[in-house]
Amino acid sequence: MIETSRIYNFSSGPAVLPLPVLEQVQRDLAALPGVGMSILEISHRSETFDAIIARTEADLRRLARIPESYRILFLQGGASLQFSMVPMNLLTHGRTADYLMTGTWADKAVKEARRVGSVNPTGSTEADGYARIPDDSECQLTPDSAYVHMTSNNTIEGTEWQRLPEVGGAPLVCDASSDIFSRPIDVARHGLIYAGAQKNLGPSGVVLVLIREDLLARSAKSLPAMLSYAVQAEYSSLYNTPPTFGIYVLGLVVQWLIGLGGLDAIDAINERKAARLYDELDRTGFWRPTAARDSRSRMNVTFRLASEELEGRFVKEATAAGFDGLKGHRSVGGMRASIYNAFPEAGVEALVDFMREFERHAG
Amino acid sequence: MIETSRIYNFSSGPAVLPLPVLEQVQRDLAALPGVGMSILEISHRSETFDAIIARTEADLRRLARIPESYRILFLQGGASLQFSMVPMNLLTHGRTADYLMTGTWADKAVKEARRVGSVNPTGSTEADGYARIPDDSECQLTPDSAYVHMTSNNTIEGTEWQRLPEVGGAPLVCDASSDIFSRPIDVARHGLIYAGAQKNLGPSGVVLVLIREDLLARSAKSLPAMLSYAVQAEYSSLYNTPPTFGIYVLGLVVQWLIGLGGLDAIDAINERKAARLYDELDRTGFWRPTAARDSRSRMNVTFRLASEELEGRFVKEATAAGFDGLKGHRSVGGMRASIYNAFPEAGVEALVDFMREFERHAG
Repeated sequence: MIETSRIYNFSSGPAVLPLPVLEQVQRDLAALPGVGMSILEISHRSETFDAIIARTEADLRRLARIPESYRILFLQGGASLQFSMVPMNLLTHGRTADYLMTGTWADKAVKEARRVGSVNPTGSTEADGYARIPDDSECQLTPDSAYVHMTSNNTIEGTEWQRLPEVGGAPLVCDASSDIFSRPIDVARHGLIYAGAQKNLGPSGVVLVLIREDLLARSAKSLPAMLSYAVQAEYSSLYNTPPTFGIYVLGLVVQWLIGLGGLDAIDAINERKAARLYDELDRTGFWRPTAARDSRSRMNVTFRLASEELEGRFVKEATAAGFDGLKGHRSVGGMRASIYNAFPEAGVEALVDFMREFERHAG
Repeated sequence: MIETSRIYNFSSGPAVLPLPVLEQVQRDLAALPGVGMSILEISHRSETFDAIIARTEADLRRLARIPESYRILFLQGGASLQFSMVPMNLLTHGRTADYLMTGTWADKAVKEARRVGSVNPTGSTEADGYARIPDDSECQLTPDSAYVHMTSNNTIEGTEWQRLPEVGGAPLVCDASSDIFSRPIDVARHGLIYAGAQKNLGPSGVVLVLIREDLLARSAKSLPAMLSYAVQAEYSSLYNTPPTFGIYVLGLVVQWLIGLGGLDAIDAINERKAARLYDELDRTGFWRPTAARDSRSRMNVTFRLASEELEGRFVKEATAAGFDGLKGHRSVGGMRASIYNAFPEAGVEALVDFMREFERHAG
């Protein structure tokens, strides 16, 4: 019954969630089984919530093979607040942080870091419209860099790193908001990974942070408590009232991923979905995918048509046919199909069918 | 069906929500009517969310008669992040902020403000165990104070301001997290009001900020964007992805309050609930309410018994009888019945009956 009232949601985030997760949230919304209170009403100091957060942490470690030397934090303020927290905590005096410039979000990250300390933006592909990920040879890193910051997937430009950059001994800090857990991830090659939940993890309002324990020593005692990784780690994300509902839903999403078979399984599904769509985009020349082939994102598939008029027509007809959110970001135009983990394969099939039909009558 | 599976939840927060709100959230969880997507999945840039946030703002203005010269912001990080944002934005160089010291939360607020600038803690009733609210004569305010900070209700100590302090021309900044919209509020006498949602407004993870527009000019351009009231106001709380679900539920809670008859109506209900409980506490001398009579909180009713042994027995028996969350904060001991707006009158009646029975067999 639920399924028939739902449409295909290609939103770039907040984005589609797994239907079994939504069904469980709905079923237990008024009162968690055996608890007699809604998840929205329980104390963050209760045994019930202790059990939820402990299970979620354990499931995350299992899903992504997160080593014990990494702390798992559930914070607020989204990736945008991480743009400030990362340099406030890690950019210690007298050092420089490198930022790999792959698009709009990297740009926002470096802008906030500049308020805090010395930064070195490098590897920019802006001259190519950010349509590709740079080679290591294009990235001029600072010796003894405080850290190297990357954006693993660029939602607006439709590009994604297919490898981790070579950063020597510097901690690699990754904004993985838009492709976390879409494929296997080698946590141990990172110093810090952060991800706003609203694409692959759950609802907006919670941000997942994985931080290598030794980096906690960099947090100055003078930092505001809420903005200190060391304080948040000391209190295991319970320094103040955390976003309990968001953490609960994130936990259910992680259980769903484990149930599917983990990151290898979702990797294969995502590969199929993206290949299906890119194959169609490449088929005739009618569609114009914007990202360089070796940099294509499997999460945000960006493409254009011969004219803006045709693009407008496509988005309008697609929306009317129940394909929502296909308009590209206002800063770049065109179209964007965001097909995160929870986006159903049937939706990609349906979109491809619709595109063929559109090409036939509009081409 | 829902009601029978629910227990009486006296938690200090996250706390009980109105049952009609929970029922609506549950009903529409998988797909908002006419939208085909869950509230957890819709873009914060969509028309659907635009309508939700616009209606919530309009309803808030109507409910609390918020003047047009005040901006309404929905932020993240709870009151604890406001402890830092308030001084970061308002404590301009060379000035001092006054803090009225009425308990644990005022203490935490001033601790964060000290990291930012010059503060003057005053009016402390610590010598009386924070069991009372200070008179104006006890508060030594700074001439040309940057602002005066107060905590309208003290959840741990069970006290509440029954008046607004006299602050001359200084902006009054109020942490109203635990009693907002429990009674009529004269917004125009404040410079800024903030409230974490998880007691009287909705789920944890969203904090409501009402700020007088002229104060936005104090936010330095060097502030991190996410921590600047000016930036958040410029983008109408959409600088980044806001906690969409929390705002949605907050909106439903405000609609529920309007439906009850607004702040005068909830004021009368809260007065009845608190009077019922304090009358019982005062009846025989068996119970020992901790707050001074003229400072008693209507939201958090704190009391003790003759011995810790007896207190332990009471909490244990009450929990077994379906009264959850009555144990006092670990820092002060004793008992605490948090009876926020959404706590049902029937629950207070039932607790009073239970207390009489306990007094009869244990007294």
